[in-house]
Amino acid sequence: MILTSDPTYEPQHALDARLRECLDQVERCFGAELASDLPCVNDLAGHVERYRGKMLRPMLAVLSALAVNEAALDDSETLERVVVLATVFEMVHMSTLVHDDVLDEADVRRRGATVNRLHGNEAAVMLGDYLISHAYHLCCALDEPTLARAVAATTNTVCEGELLQLSHRHDFEITERTYFEIIRRKTASLTGACCSLSATLLGQPADGTTGAALAAFGEKVGIAFQIIDDVLDLVGDEATVGKSLGRDLAKGKMTLPLIRWVAGLDGPSRAVALSQCAGAAAGSDPEAIRRAVAASGAIESAREAATALIDDARGRLIAELPDSAARRRLCDLAAAVLSRRH
Amino acid sequence: MILTSDPTYEPQHALDARLRECLDQVERCFGAELASDLPCVNDLAGHVERYRGKMLRPMLAVLSALAVNEAALDDSETLERVVVLATVFEMVHMSTLVHDDVLDEADVRRRGATVNRLHGNEAAVMLGDYLISHAYHLCCALDEPTLARAVAATTNTVCEGELLQLSHRHDFEITERTYFEIIRRKTASLTGACCSLSATLLGQPADGTTGAALAAFGEKVGIAFQIIDDVLDLVGDEATVGKSLGRDLAKGKMTLPLIRWVAGLDGPSRAVALSQCAGAAAGSDPEAIRRAVAASGAIESAREAATALIDDARGRLIAELPDSAARRRLCDLAAAVLSRRH
Repeated sequence: MILTSDPTYEPQHALDARLRECLDQVERCFGAELASDLPCVNDLAGHVERYRGKMLRPMLAVLSALAVNEAALDDSETLERVVVLATVFEMVHMSTLVHDDVLDEADVRRRGATVNRLHGNEAAVMLGDYLISHAYHLCCALDEPTLARAVAATTNTVCEGELLQLSHRHDFEITERTYFEIIRRKTASLTGACCSLSATLLGQPADGTTGAALAAFGEKVGIAFQIIDDVLDLVGDEATVGKSLGRDLAKGKMTLPLIRWVAGLDGPSRAVALSQCAGAAAGSDPEAIRRAVAASGAIESAREAATALIDDARGRLIAELPDSAARRRLCDLAAAVLSRRH
Repeated sequence: MILTSDPTYEPQHALDARLRECLDQVERCFGAELASDLPCVNDLAGHVERYRGKMLRPMLAVLSALAVNEAALDDSETLERVVVLATVFEMVHMSTLVHDDVLDEADVRRRGATVNRLHGNEAAVMLGDYLISHAYHLCCALDEPTLARAVAATTNTVCEGELLQLSHRHDFEITERTYFEIIRRKTASLTGACCSLSATLLGQPADGTTGAALAAFGEKVGIAFQIIDDVLDLVGDEATVGKSLGRDLAKGKMTLPLIRWVAGLDGPSRAVALSQCAGAAAGSDPEAIRRAVAASGAIESAREAATALIDDARGRLIAELPDSAARRRLCDLAAAVLSRRH
């Protein structure tokens, strides 16, 4: 009620309704694309529902399109194409989650293998493949080879990020530079593409300032999102976050707070910290590490890095795109990345 | 020398040289597409070389293009496009091999897990993803959205076949109908696409008789190839085949000879056979099964099924495509599937 006195209320309200409708369409498009004549495939694909989360990537895609040319989406065919592209991004993301799950299940298996988990693993490999295959299949329906190639170039980069991360597993002295290189490729390339390729779909030149601003916005939001993920994995509340924590270290993955904590140490205390990391990766309780990282100020330092990225992202968007309800919602979405608890 | 008296020798000789050159180009295209600025990615992608085998799929693609319109490949741009498509198929195939390897390694791990194998598993998941992503990326370079969508539709089908197979693992009473449904999707859809989409690339209508004949040829060759694979896994010579045998049963997969053996039994002997299969899947020595299957005539029966498929495939090709050195080589390739020992 009080919001109606805000002059921006009505456009934001209309935008939210429009966004919600688009996300509903994304869900329907997602389900329709995956439908198979084989019941066993539909059963397994139905499991993907449990991975469905914040729909961050479809939101970025739809809001970017609206921010570039809201009126264009009054045309139902254009709207449908934006929905298809947003669905492609969600499907790519789900595929990476399902395959990450394989790695996670592998981890669980290290502490007690069962044949059932093994079967789950195999099904997860194939389900991830099914999702990525359908993502490309759906993308080709847009009849835009350059766009489809850009999507594939993005997934090439995502895979490189995953492989780079894998090659640095148990590298407890990984540099901050390498860390950022990993998440730029693994996470930020996809969120950047969500924003910039929506603009491309609406006819913005790929090398234009609007596309570049949206790409930069999406990338920075993606990096910040990952940093907050890192922080939550280390100091979040398990019940709130909704998944078991401390998994990064348990999997031998150094994250920004850990890297900054180690970087602030030298001599014997650094050696002790590295040995604690190795211990946690081998299964020791990471509680002492959590306390030491928190006491070192590295959590705040990581949060500040994320905040600076979000400030940059919003600044870039405000400088390059005209004011609109969609642009404001993108800025809100970026800010929400910092305050999320799960 | 004696071959020079054969009037078909010269065209076949010229064709073989041309095919060899195309396959060399496929190898170069494969390597160029996978090149990354990250050394760790290049190191891992280099491992794919060890999977490089008979190049059956690129051969089918290149020979099909030559059989449809050999003169068209005198144009270097057209030749390059055929090479790209052939490379896409090889890359898709390699991706499925790498992910199959994950399942195989999982199997090895059941008999004695090591952390190293686990790391290999994770890298294999990501490497397979990297390959499939690059396959689509390369495919989009052809600037043919309909063709790219057909390739993605094929990989959708391949994944369905894998998932159907997975859902029937340890189903020792699987029907022959389901078995053929699995390999039609998992194996034959890709070999069919190798042949028919090459024709599409050269301008043949997707629903024309030439495209349909090539699709049928490729599918039948793929099914026959899989049946012979099944036979070799059961009764091949391990040193000749070059991989450990009896893996199908060890992984709970029933193959055509096994299905026909069980189908020929009833009452108590059928129950014993099914229990033997379950035992082999649980790790027992499959020697008794091999002897029983051989004695039942099911090996010959499976070989006859493969022979009938190859006869059909060749007949279809000869009926629908004009005679040419490439058509003869396709027929030879089909015949070679039956006599292969590895």
